[in-house]
Amino acid sequence: MAVVVQKYGGSSVADPVRIKNVARRIARKVRGGFKVVSVVSAMGKTTDQLISLAKSVSENPDERELDMVLVTGEQVSCALVAMALRDLGINAISLNAFQAKILTTGNHTNARIVDINSKRLKEYLRSYDVVVITGFQGINEDENFTTLGRGGSDTSAVALAATLKSDCEIYSDVAGVYTCDPKLYPKTRKWKYITYDDMLELAAMGAKVLHSRSVEIAKKYNVKIYCGSSFSDEEGTWVVDKLPEWLEEPVVTGISLDEGQVKASIMNLPNDATVISDIFKRVAEKGINVDMISLVKNGEATHVSFTVVSDKIAGIKELLDETLSTYGGNYHFYGRFSKITIVGTGMRSNYGVASKFLELLASEGVEPELITTSEIKISALVPEEKAHALVEKICEEFQL
Amino acid sequence: MAVVVQKYGGSSVADPVRIKNVARRIARKVRGGFKVVSVVSAMGKTTDQLISLAKSVSENPDERELDMVLVTGEQVSCALVAMALRDLGINAISLNAFQAKILTTGNHTNARIVDINSKRLKEYLRSYDVVVITGFQGINEDENFTTLGRGGSDTSAVALAATLKSDCEIYSDVAGVYTCDPKLYPKTRKWKYITYDDMLELAAMGAKVLHSRSVEIAKKYNVKIYCGSSFSDEEGTWVVDKLPEWLEEPVVTGISLDEGQVKASIMNLPNDATVISDIFKRVAEKGINVDMISLVKNGEATHVSFTVVSDKIAGIKELLDETLSTYGGNYHFYGRFSKITIVGTGMRSNYGVASKFLELLASEGVEPELITTSEIKISALVPEEKAHALVEKICEEFQL
Repeated sequence: MAVVVQKYGGSSVADPVRIKNVARRIARKVRGGFKVVSVVSAMGKTTDQLISLAKSVSENPDERELDMVLVTGEQVSCALVAMALRDLGINAISLNAFQAKILTTGNHTNARIVDINSKRLKEYLRSYDVVVITGFQGINEDENFTTLGRGGSDTSAVALAATLKSDCEIYSDVAGVYTCDPKLYPKTRKWKYITYDDMLELAAMGAKVLHSRSVEIAKKYNVKIYCGSSFSDEEGTWVVDKLPEWLEEPVVTGISLDEGQVKASIMNLPNDATVISDIFKRVAEKGINVDMISLVKNGEATHVSFTVVSDKIAGIKELLDETLSTYGGNYHFYGRFSKITIVGTGMRSNYGVASKFLELLASEGVEPELITTSEIKISALVPEEKAHALVEKICEEFQL
Repeated sequence: MAVVVQKYGGSSVADPVRIKNVARRIARKVRGGFKVVSVVSAMGKTTDQLISLAKSVSENPDERELDMVLVTGEQVSCALVAMALRDLGINAISLNAFQAKILTTGNHTNARIVDINSKRLKEYLRSYDVVVITGFQGINEDENFTTLGRGGSDTSAVALAATLKSDCEIYSDVAGVYTCDPKLYPKTRKWKYITYDDMLELAAMGAKVLHSRSVEIAKKYNVKIYCGSSFSDEEGTWVVDKLPEWLEEPVVTGISLDEGQVKASIMNLPNDATVISDIFKRVAEKGINVDMISLVKNGEATHVSFTVVSDKIAGIKELLDETLSTYGGNYHFYGRFSKITIVGTGMRSNYGVASKFLELLASEGVEPELITTSEIKISALVPEEKAHALVEKICEEFQL
């Protein structure tokens, strides 16, 4: 039997009208000859509401009990989708993690799927045309509910597809994977195909189409993912291992912009590796994320710069005042800046990208404050007021 | 180990403040040396809200899927109670019907408990001081969720107490079982003890303290039930097999008043049993409840009277016009009346109750329109305007 996994996100099932819409889309797939495993998220903002309910009872809710509360969100939406399907004459059943036997590690609120009982799942698929399964959740070996962390429904869907050796269709309110946020560059293009590696970089950069963990699993088990809109039939994006051969590999697949960045520079630190590691350890302990770390040694002294979002300045200041009183050195904040990042696995075999990127900045009269690179990614820190015009130039230059 | 089952109804856990209050009450019991199995209903009006959500997706929701939606209400409230208990330093865990292995018959929305895995329950009680269990729900042998129908949490609690051979404390917003509605007779008394049989009659008469099915199970397995308030420490009522020997058995244990009654009389029907049964079958098919049926044969004709609530007159009229055109006979409605019922297992051994009751009506100048009796119950239909004064007289006479 032809099986496909279809995942619908929270905004796709936010109210009864949208639930019925999702049911119609699933029904269409069934009438097209497929058995469908449908993974459904909690309705709209339900998970957030359940978290605040728990926090109004306990400031720091027990995680095992919090998971027990959270998993009800998906159970409700799945049962509602199954009801709507039955009204359309489709033989559907909803299953929670207990019933579907989705086994995870023991850690609550951030578990990982370790096993899905595929024999049982296939039995259900013999009896039903659609099996609607709660995303985001599992049970551990003590029969406690667990949750997979934010975006976990994507992971559930891809794991089910891996188990069933089927494709995985992920539907949300975005019709696919774009080269950049349409708000930044209205002429943004949607990819027809994108590789797992590029998708992983884009997900890490905050593209909300797919959760990183789900892409990792897809890559590992070679599950083809299709990202589309649950509200239209517009063509979406396939996330695959390799682009089709007829397709010329794009050098740059995406661009992102992070605004509100401040550059912190610490000068004249002693040339002692433990000093730097101690400073960044303390920053991490404060729960502050720093980025674009760049380090220069200059004779007897070490200078280090990094970026941080502007509302964390106070926290960093406090920490540096304390640390530098021991180690010596002085610091200064500069800002505000924006971080522009371009991504593309094609960069691996195309050495000219970095220079083309920097040339472009220079031709616009922008001297980047900081630059960091990885194999498939370049980021530059530029003055905030020049960032939007630059993004547009880059999109044109790299045909994004 | 000393174990007790405590059940808290929906209004007792309607919001976070009340949930914390319930947790404090359970904690007190634990500190008094008990292991507690706590059965908790869904918060406030949650079940009603979930039903309307389901109905906004499907006019006539699939019952298996409806149960899947409904059971989430108790899962949330139980987990919240467990969280609040952990904040009080109590070692608590919440379990849904899957985890607690509460096995029911297969029929959805109205299932019956057939088995509770007591071995497993006792294991949990060895590891935890409090096990908070979802009321109102079970799983059937196909691992589908089932629900026990309205008031089912009482049944869950009593069934758990029967399994554990423990007492069962049922907490709600009413502090026990009263002789009559305090709105009818402000000097109403609360019983310290009441028998299962009296409680069953009172429950059937609409006393909302306990669900009939739970009393039946308590009677069968001889589970002592204590009914009290979750908001105060006021002494409640014990529901038991036999009253303590030192307690003089009351003849009348309760009184109720049903207002808005109309008497329908059908005269001159043929003396043919199938005619009467046909009429009442048609009434039932229309979903109309009739009560206090009384039948008199007079020579060649049969006369039958019954009561019905006044807003059903139109439905009955339509039906009688149709039926009597075949059978002959004529009908008339009289009203409005109130039905006064007194209940007491003590009546069994006390033959004077009926005559005392009728004497009392006569002394107030009231001639009852209809009278029906059972072994432990007498009802009289009296003019509506005289009912309230009569209730007061009866309460005084029978020391209610």
